[in-house]
Amino acid sequence: MSVTTPLGFRASGATAGLKPSGNPDVALVVNDGPSFTAAAVFTDNRCKANPVLWSEQVCKDGQVRAVALNSGGANCYTGPEGFQTTHASAEHTAQQLTASAVPGAATAAIDVAICSTGLIGELLDRDKLLTGLTEAVAKLSDDGGQAAATAIMTTDTRAKQAKHAGAGWSIGGMAKGAGMLAPSLATMLVVITTDAALDPVAADLALRAATSATFDRLDSDGCMSTNDTVLLMASGASGVTPTHEEFTAGLTAVCHDLGQQLIGDAEGAEHDIAIEVVHAATQQDALDAARAIARNNLFKCAVFGKDANWGRILAAVGTTRAAFDPATLDVAFNGVWVCRDGGIGESRDLVDLSRRQVEVTVDLKAGQESATIWTNDLTHAYVHENSAYST
Amino acid sequence: MSVTTPLGFRASGATAGLKPSGNPDVALVVNDGPSFTAAAVFTDNRCKANPVLWSEQVCKDGQVRAVALNSGGANCYTGPEGFQTTHASAEHTAQQLTASAVPGAATAAIDVAICSTGLIGELLDRDKLLTGLTEAVAKLSDDGGQAAATAIMTTDTRAKQAKHAGAGWSIGGMAKGAGMLAPSLATMLVVITTDAALDPVAADLALRAATSATFDRLDSDGCMSTNDTVLLMASGASGVTPTHEEFTAGLTAVCHDLGQQLIGDAEGAEHDIAIEVVHAATQQDALDAARAIARNNLFKCAVFGKDANWGRILAAVGTTRAAFDPATLDVAFNGVWVCRDGGIGESRDLVDLSRRQVEVTVDLKAGQESATIWTNDLTHAYVHENSAYST
Repeated sequence: MSVTTPLGFRASGATAGLKPSGNPDVALVVNDGPSFTAAAVFTDNRCKANPVLWSEQVCKDGQVRAVALNSGGANCYTGPEGFQTTHASAEHTAQQLTASAVPGAATAAIDVAICSTGLIGELLDRDKLLTGLTEAVAKLSDDGGQAAATAIMTTDTRAKQAKHAGAGWSIGGMAKGAGMLAPSLATMLVVITTDAALDPVAADLALRAATSATFDRLDSDGCMSTNDTVLLMASGASGVTPTHEEFTAGLTAVCHDLGQQLIGDAEGAEHDIAIEVVHAATQQDALDAARAIARNNLFKCAVFGKDANWGRILAAVGTTRAAFDPATLDVAFNGVWVCRDGGIGESRDLVDLSRRQVEVTVDLKAGQESATIWTNDLTHAYVHENSAYST
Repeated sequence: MSVTTPLGFRASGATAGLKPSGNPDVALVVNDGPSFTAAAVFTDNRCKANPVLWSEQVCKDGQVRAVALNSGGANCYTGPEGFQTTHASAEHTAQQLTASAVPGAATAAIDVAICSTGLIGELLDRDKLLTGLTEAVAKLSDDGGQAAATAIMTTDTRAKQAKHAGAGWSIGGMAKGAGMLAPSLATMLVVITTDAALDPVAADLALRAATSATFDRLDSDGCMSTNDTVLLMASGASGVTPTHEEFTAGLTAVCHDLGQQLIGDAEGAEHDIAIEVVHAATQQDALDAARAIARNNLFKCAVFGKDANWGRILAAVGTTRAAFDPATLDVAFNGVWVCRDGGIGESRDLVDLSRRQVEVTVDLKAGQESATIWTNDLTHAYVHENSAYST
């Protein structure tokens, strides 16, 4: 049930002292091969953190030996000095791994991906980080997945892990993220391991297919992060090469599981909201309409107040260019069609929004496509956590 | 200082009983001529309220005799029955005005614009509304502007009015709006009167120029309304025709004044934030970057917490396609440049965010254009008001 579930991986968690709480804050996941295939997706944000700028280069050749992650600081918007810290982390991890490995199994810095999470706009303490990485290398073990998943937590209230068992191969994953969950990408730190034997092209295709249907459709608060990374590493240690369909399905299941754990632990949220738009003319129309609703603060406040306020849904859909006729829109909360043909439908008193899970369905009556975006409500606690975050 | 400041207008407020509070809820503004020139801008939302669908038709010929407004119900997403209520309001107002006028000065329903505000998705009580309109016609007076401005309030805490004095002509205006203030248009109910002598083309040109630089740049909470209307009526009673530049400048000043009153009274807000983007390659780039910041919930929460969190500003700007280099961005809060060249600048401890007014400046270093978007912070009170709104 972790990144060390598949064969060929070791992991660890360590405490570098980057967090004021003194909780573990450095994680390491190492691929022991025989294959070092990797694929990654990164945030679409043009203002990227230093570890993203570094890891984009590391992943370009489809080969990654290890990934070092830290919480307690995002190393974002920290300029050349911050980039040097990222680079030093990779160098140091590579040296330590090479020193502890059998002769001939050297790891180069350019094969070590780096991920960081925490406050942005503040320098990381480089000395503490490197000391923590030394400890992380020393602690590596083939059941260290849980420790790694714990060390990457920030405002997460629980470690997030998932797995998938194939026929003779498996996938394991861990994730962190409890805010800034938004669109068009990764939007969190995720490391996924597999012992399937994959080439880099197959890994990349599968990862893009899986993330586009899962992480890309999470939109907790509309805010796109600066550090988001989803990294897939494949050791080939099972000796099995699943079909593209088999592997993509398993990977998508793991990504979906982790994504739902992220939404379920979003900062201050009291409701997890699945917004499904059906009978859209195109997939993009369905996504656009669903995302417009997911980003509407008035709608999100209404759900917090357990109010099936369908008018705010129509007002949100009305801002899109999706094909629909305002006079024929239907909207349901948890299966109760409170809006029919753009007007008053069943009584909203029939809707029970006391449970955490909320399903909103919007029928555009314009075609055969559908899509779902997952979001959260907007609560007092969200405002509180995000106004007090850096103090 | 009201819609009855210019010559040729009467106005009134009345109580139809549409509001549970029993406060005034019907307003009427009548143009007594000699000219009946009008221009209007409406919400861009594709899901429009019934009064907007009606008033779009009324304003098409550039002639409006009167506008009847009600609070206590938006008559939005109320289907054919709701549209009939709007139509009946115009018919009834026209009949009452004709009956009370000198012989020969008949008003037709198609010259009566209708505006409604309040909850959406609920039917208005037609009988109460018509009775209130009868009272409003009876109460019309040439100093009724204040009463009209008071009757259109919903969650507004104060009536909003403005004026401009030209050389022998004047402009008066009133507005309501305290939430759902967003982009691309009107986004509130605004009635502006002038005794300048204007033809419909001149009125339309001036109104579009004025609103594009003012109301279109308010983005309190990113939520586009369904009922937004800005209506300009010109009586020509002064006999003066100002130049296009003179009139547009005066109209823009009135719109700016009303817009700032709206931002200053936004639901639950504790800060009014002016986001100015400078040295943009294009005006659109400046607007896109400023609007991305204005809609970033994490940024808005930070300002509520009096935290000059410039990292969230960079993360927001990074989601746009504006021309800029992430490594050279500068950001200031109230003149303190806390971010220099995409990294740490002056200490954020130098920034005092205790005052209601906050100025954020972002220097894209990509050209010579600039633009400002006005927004509010995201507070506990905003969440509370908008989650409890319909209960």
